[in-house]
Amino acid sequence: MSGSGTNRKAKNITDGPAVVLIRPQMGENIGAVARAMANFGLSELRIVAPRDGWPNPAAVAMAASASSIIENAILFDDLKSALSDCHYVLCTSARPHEQIKPIVSPKDGVTQLYSHHTQGQKTALMFGPERAGLENEDISWASAICSIPANPAYASLNLAQAVVILGYEWFSQAHQSALPSKAQTFERASRAELFSLMDFFEEQLTHMGYFRPPHKAPVMARNLRNILHRLELNAQDVKTFYGALQALVKGPMPLSGKSKKP
Amino acid sequence: MSGSGTNRKAKNITDGPAVVLIRPQMGENIGAVARAMANFGLSELRIVAPRDGWPNPAAVAMAASASSIIENAILFDDLKSALSDCHYVLCTSARPHEQIKPIVSPKDGVTQLYSHHTQGQKTALMFGPERAGLENEDISWASAICSIPANPAYASLNLAQAVVILGYEWFSQAHQSALPSKAQTFERASRAELFSLMDFFEEQLTHMGYFRPPHKAPVMARNLRNILHRLELNAQDVKTFYGALQALVKGPMPLSGKSKKP
Repeated sequence: MSGSGTNRKAKNITDGPAVVLIRPQMGENIGAVARAMANFGLSELRIVAPRDGWPNPAAVAMAASASSIIENAILFDDLKSALSDCHYVLCTSARPHEQIKPIVSPKDGVTQLYSHHTQGQKTALMFGPERAGLENEDISWASAICSIPANPAYASLNLAQAVVILGYEWFSQAHQSALPSKAQTFERASRAELFSLMDFFEEQLTHMGYFRPPHKAPVMARNLRNILHRLELNAQDVKTFYGALQALVKGPMPLSGKSKKP
Repeated sequence: MSGSGTNRKAKNITDGPAVVLIRPQMGENIGAVARAMANFGLSELRIVAPRDGWPNPAAVAMAASASSIIENAILFDDLKSALSDCHYVLCTSARPHEQIKPIVSPKDGVTQLYSHHTQGQKTALMFGPERAGLENEDISWASAICSIPANPAYASLNLAQAVVILGYEWFSQAHQSALPSKAQTFERASRAELFSLMDFFEEQLTHMGYFRPPHKAPVMARNLRNILHRLELNAQDVKTFYGALQALVKGPMPLSGKSKKP
């Protein structure tokens, strides 16, 4: 969403589970997976029996600034060798599988995986081919099945999008300090600052004859105060608002003479 | 991840916030946004001042089975008209903005948005142009800024990927019944079933002379029982395991005569 694809000055995070693609078809999709991996600090790509062989120039082209992930990808002939050093493998599948294996949401699956990761175990996220997804035989080698919740009528996510969602969950859970803090709130103005603004507002409105009829003045003033309370102003807001009110009270000022006449 | 793009028999969910694209550039990206929206049950697309005009055939082509979202998209000349009927607007931005406005994670932002949605208020998710993202001026019209956590060195998500993440959070929170249940665990075997398996295992091993030297038999048996406990077997697992042990005990069976000799 920001302009450039990479930021060479910023820290590149390369921790995290391996991403294992089983029989991927299009090189472009493998490249898009690499970009999604880079976005979420995943760096280790394993490719099992790609349809169009390996290396694949289309994958490099699509990976763009994440092409090093493609260049460092490891090719395997079969799924078992690709997973043999792993302790915990989470696979994704949209289809129901009649297997006695936990089915988890991306969030819960990544929580499990992260718990293995923090114990120093090797972990992996496994994804099937674009068209048909993982087969039952593939899934029998995984620790758990991750089911990405989606609109039943359009439940088919593309490969890179599935990696985006698992990557996002991974990064959110493994790098919590990168999350905006839940407690991120702006320090409220002190009551003294707020009351001073309220006083000024009411004085000026009184001066302008706003509070009419006079017997309703106390209710009208209370309503205004309650609006200002609801605004949850911070100290800077109070100054800004104060300045704006003052400007209204003072009336039009002559424009600065700086701009040259045409 | 599953085979087909659409499932005409399944329920199509079309609830949810409007997706508002501000000055989008590539038609292909608008089409990819429509697909991501369909995946997560979002149906209302609003497009503000698209660079290449509207309608855009590239958007329809890329949207594929989600092309109805493109066909029903509403075009606006400016951001304010696109948002005028909305009560709560969450915008996404990777850049820091010096604005006094809450910065939230996708999860927390969607929680806020969903709470407004359930009160019957109109809500929107707002995304900036691919290259530069939203400008400060755009952001000043939104209720809150959503910051998607990402690898600092590759923090730039593409437009459709940002929609995927917000859409995923929306769907997960708004359609919780679609999530795999946290309590999804398989009913464990009863202790009677498990003990029966343990007894058979130990009897057969005793018969085979496995427990040697005899004084270590109790410890060896306890170790085996503890392994079986750790397996957390369900009733079907116990039967499967029992059958496998019996086959080992019985020794090789003659192959069925069904297959014809070559």
